[in-house]
Amino acid sequence: MKVNITTIGWGTGTFNVLYGLKKNENYNLAAIVSVSDSWGSTGEIRDQFGILPPGDIRRAIVALSEDTGIVRKLFEYRFNAGNRIAGHTIGNLLLTALTDITGSFEKGIQELSDMFDVRGKVIPVTLDDTQLGIILEDGTEIIGETNIDIPKHNANLEIREAFLVGGGELNHRAREALVNSDYIIVGPGDLYTSIVPNLLATGMREAIQKSKAKMIYICNIMTKYGETNNFEVEDFVNVIEKYIGENEIDYVLVNNAPIGEELILKYKQEENKQPVRITDMKLFANVPYKIIERDVVNEQDYIRHDPEKLSKVISDFVEGWIK
Amino acid sequence: MKVNITTIGWGTGTFNVLYGLKKNENYNLAAIVSVSDSWGSTGEIRDQFGILPPGDIRRAIVALSEDTGIVRKLFEYRFNAGNRIAGHTIGNLLLTALTDITGSFEKGIQELSDMFDVRGKVIPVTLDDTQLGIILEDGTEIIGETNIDIPKHNANLEIREAFLVGGGELNHRAREALVNSDYIIVGPGDLYTSIVPNLLATGMREAIQKSKAKMIYICNIMTKYGETNNFEVEDFVNVIEKYIGENEIDYVLVNNAPIGEELILKYKQEENKQPVRITDMKLFANVPYKIIERDVVNEQDYIRHDPEKLSKVISDFVEGWIK
Repeated sequence: MKVNITTIGWGTGTFNVLYGLKKNENYNLAAIVSVSDSWGSTGEIRDQFGILPPGDIRRAIVALSEDTGIVRKLFEYRFNAGNRIAGHTIGNLLLTALTDITGSFEKGIQELSDMFDVRGKVIPVTLDDTQLGIILEDGTEIIGETNIDIPKHNANLEIREAFLVGGGELNHRAREALVNSDYIIVGPGDLYTSIVPNLLATGMREAIQKSKAKMIYICNIMTKYGETNNFEVEDFVNVIEKYIGENEIDYVLVNNAPIGEELILKYKQEENKQPVRITDMKLFANVPYKIIERDVVNEQDYIRHDPEKLSKVISDFVEGWIK
Repeated sequence: MKVNITTIGWGTGTFNVLYGLKKNENYNLAAIVSVSDSWGSTGEIRDQFGILPPGDIRRAIVALSEDTGIVRKLFEYRFNAGNRIAGHTIGNLLLTALTDITGSFEKGIQELSDMFDVRGKVIPVTLDDTQLGIILEDGTEIIGETNIDIPKHNANLEIREAFLVGGGELNHRAREALVNSDYIIVGPGDLYTSIVPNLLATGMREAIQKSKAKMIYICNIMTKYGETNNFEVEDFVNVIEKYIGENEIDYVLVNNAPIGEELILKYKQEENKQPVRITDMKLFANVPYKIIERDVVNEQDYIRHDPEKLSKVISDFVEGWIK
């Protein structure tokens, strides 16, 4: 029997999870991806072609493709300055063309997935045209992922609320994947720009509540300035539970590998980020989820989750080593 | 033992040949394609990216791809007006990106061919940057395929000479394919804009002379205004032999199926074209090649060669039914 695993989120973190998991043939993978991106090539395509933003889908397809060499390079290839295509990526252009040819964004994704031997399904969380919005603690409303992600607002203010402009019904294929999952993996990813946009889809809360899947939240290794300043593990969980309901998260995976002092200092100085650490396990004595601490870091010039290490932890869950 | 078949030429005619032949698993196919195109998206890419023109290569890949549905549509997909990518085709953009990624036009073709399950090899006739030039009977010199193909010159004047601006050495892989061929198929295609540009490569004449392949020329069904006005079968052969040497062509395949009067009239009125016919076989009593007359036409709204019928004739050659 294959194990159904669904990921929620997008960005380097989730793609690292998928990249690690796809090597295991016992897993049926589904990647639920938010489609509220409004950046660069993707934003322009969204404006000019009237299709959903292709960028996140493109990156999920790359992560799940059997061929990670040339396909990845081709999909992520961005035309240089000096011509009128400058700034567009091949992956975005392919998805735009296939959406037009097949007449639907979802069929376009399917064709692209077939063409590049994708292991698993890439599912846009909603097929409605939405934008992410947030409200800061002083009441300021900010619309558009671009504006939130690299804050043009006062980044010292807390985010109080997130919403989808124009609503956004949960895609029925996303619902199906969630309900039939054995494991739902949330994150890792930027809390408000990568994870919450998925959770905001109308019907997401019900789908997660209906699902009997074990739900694992992979907590960020570092905070993000303007989104999760000074956040502790429980703060991340609280925000997620605000949108999906309490007692849904079963496990929270937290990195416990040490990170070099120099790198921490660099992150502090350049990006105003700091490590997310559990200082006292006693604080978690009465929470309805279980904390799993592991070395999941891939530390080189920057700090990120390691696909192999994450994959190993997930298989420890599947094989019953973590209970 | 597989049969090695190499085609020379490009355009709808040659692609119809390839399309028909690829279904036979006993054939090792190689398509030698000229790279002097200077049209539209291809011309712009040539100018702005400094790579060889991708258009003809793209069409050959489509013709030889195992998947002729969505891949063909995707490759030939052209972005519409209303955005800054307008006019470019996906196939051209893919080849441009892969040429940049792999660092060579040939490797780019190879990757694209692998990606889309191409049966056989697509080989640019030369890797040098060339343009087609012609000299008319009044001495006028015209450079660039675009200018020759839809004549801005006096189309009633005969073409006296064709040449490649900047030379153009035969690609060694093209040479290898020709020398090792059992059959070399020339055309069908526009004589001066699709076939001759291949024959002009330095080393082509020697490669053909060295090859022991049977050489079949598939003659055009219709003349082309500004290129082959009033041409008879022997005129086509004479032009080809001018560039590859005499006695190289073994067979000339000529359509003998009737074409509707109405369609002939339409072609005459709209494009100044007329059918190429053999009126008297006695004229060919002493030529060094054999005329094969067959019904090879696919007549619908326009007149063109039928892939299945062409493929059937080629297999009659291979199986020894035509001697």
